[in-house]
Amino acid sequence: MLVRDLSEEALLRRIVPVLPRGRLTLIAAGDDAAVVNAPDGRVVVTTDVLVENQHFRRDWSSGMDVGRRAAVQNLADIAAMGARPTALVVALVMPGDLPVDWAVGVAEGLAAACGPLGVGVVGGDLSGGPLVVVSVTAHGDLEGAAPVRRSGARAGDVVAHAGVRGWSAAGLDLLLAGRGHLDDELVAAYLRPTSPLDAGPAAARAGATAMIDVSDGLLRDAGRVGRASGVVIDLDRAEDAFGDDLDRLADAAGVLGKLARSWVLGGGEDHGLLATFPPDAVLPEPFRVVGHVRPVPHGGRPGVLVAGAVPDVAPGWDHFGG
Amino acid sequence: MLVRDLSEEALLRRIVPVLPRGRLTLIAAGDDAAVVNAPDGRVVVTTDVLVENQHFRRDWSSGMDVGRRAAVQNLADIAAMGARPTALVVALVMPGDLPVDWAVGVAEGLAAACGPLGVGVVGGDLSGGPLVVVSVTAHGDLEGAAPVRRSGARAGDVVAHAGVRGWSAAGLDLLLAGRGHLDDELVAAYLRPTSPLDAGPAAARAGATAMIDVSDGLLRDAGRVGRASGVVIDLDRAEDAFGDDLDRLADAAGVLGKLARSWVLGGGEDHGLLATFPPDAVLPEPFRVVGHVRPVPHGGRPGVLVAGAVPDVAPGWDHFGG
Repeated sequence: MLVRDLSEEALLRRIVPVLPRGRLTLIAAGDDAAVVNAPDGRVVVTTDVLVENQHFRRDWSSGMDVGRRAAVQNLADIAAMGARPTALVVALVMPGDLPVDWAVGVAEGLAAACGPLGVGVVGGDLSGGPLVVVSVTAHGDLEGAAPVRRSGARAGDVVAHAGVRGWSAAGLDLLLAGRGHLDDELVAAYLRPTSPLDAGPAAARAGATAMIDVSDGLLRDAGRVGRASGVVIDLDRAEDAFGDDLDRLADAAGVLGKLARSWVLGGGEDHGLLATFPPDAVLPEPFRVVGHVRPVPHGGRPGVLVAGAVPDVAPGWDHFGG
Repeated sequence: MLVRDLSEEALLRRIVPVLPRGRLTLIAAGDDAAVVNAPDGRVVVTTDVLVENQHFRRDWSSGMDVGRRAAVQNLADIAAMGARPTALVVALVMPGDLPVDWAVGVAEGLAAACGPLGVGVVGGDLSGGPLVVVSVTAHGDLEGAAPVRRSGARAGDVVAHAGVRGWSAAGLDLLLAGRGHLDDELVAAYLRPTSPLDAGPAAARAGATAMIDVSDGLLRDAGRVGRASGVVIDLDRAEDAFGDDLDRLADAAGVLGKLARSWVLGGGEDHGLLATFPPDAVLPEPFRVVGHVRPVPHGGRPGVLVAGAVPDVAPGWDHFGG
């Protein structure tokens, strides 16, 4: 059955029952708007959109994959502020010839990512259109903590990372080369990324001075923290800081003739968390030290370096090129 | 200059300065997520998407029109819960050959709708895609009031409406017939709708028992209130309740060979507010009585009637047909 075979209300009757209510939800989907508790008195808000053929392909990703990814990339942005996710809403644009099961799969993917965390999927909007667009807005609660911004890193802090590095880019390159069957785990890291969400609020409690969701590549996102903070984020040599990732990606890199280092330093969409901490902080799991914050050298600029030098790999993803 | 001529960061440097910060915003666009005060301790959330060629045409609407409309239709949903809007975020999908000025226009339209209200535009996401999609999520604060749901109408209540009725549908039909030049005000009601946003919180304070944003037509949305509340929303005869709108639309209806009654009762996207109040309530401006809430008659069903009878015009808009 296709989306065009159902009325909007019939489609909603298939989708809405799949959605988790969430532990802080007062009024869920079905009215003009949802109402969600905001116990902290401040609400954290972020939005991210996935566009068919731009961010995903339907021959690679199921509806459930896309729903899960749309949720995780937004929840990671909430965690990167040091907040705990509470609820999300979704706008779903669909062509009339989309199978209804695919649309319901998006809801199931959102539910799979949100339900176990007590996060509600509390509202949405459906529209026709020539291709699938999934636009999610996520919300979080700071639980009394100060939000962790990109701009708070100070010279002398340690730089730490939680999550995988380069796996998603490696999985994408395998798929692009038609070799996805070689490594299911890397392909899954691209199609169904996970994020160490608990590490976000834990980092805030441990005194993190700055934090960012690594969605556009480690170098590019570290550079953002450096520029926002007016410091240099000096990552350790990839062989020292990310030896396990380099080992893990070596086979795929060999098959494709790529450099594992480029995936680790430049690859996007891993949705790990990069944070800076005072040197005496006790890092929460699974953060580990991957570099140090340096003052901007005389005549230099804020940004990112690797072992004190300008990195020699492409800095990551820009959505419009240029 | 076209969108594809700029990097994402260069495009953001054009767009972000246009956006209003908002009176309750703690952290605006530029970090992983925004932080907005939620003084009530609950946050109201709604999302609505506009898709090119589905909801708007670029030969009719400027970027500013589309931005303004995207904001207003979301703010109206916040008001319909009895809440005051506080902040919104926007995901903007754009083809590479979109003029940069059009994209900046969207931001200007959002700003025009939000800025004067103290509503912030606090975050967003940009993506490439084959056509323009504007997905907005809006937030509101209940200021201590109970949210006004669709389900609270009680037999004996009065039915009241604030806003225009049928003007947007008339404007759209004029445009579709190539006769938009005949009535700028009706065309503007379609391209740049307004909503009596202050009337939402005012209705909550005045004891409104149910409320809905009239986006899919008066009959369809009144029917939703009736079904959610288990009552009949019995609208007065259009000639009695909406005589001013019928007069206003008579010329356009005559030119196009349409019925003004169909626009008033079935036309969508006016973004007025339909509410029910206890019979002794003092209605806040600009609400006026347009009907009464009746018990479901023996053998009947909850929903909508006009002067006690099943309405004889199409009930309004369904996004997928069927």
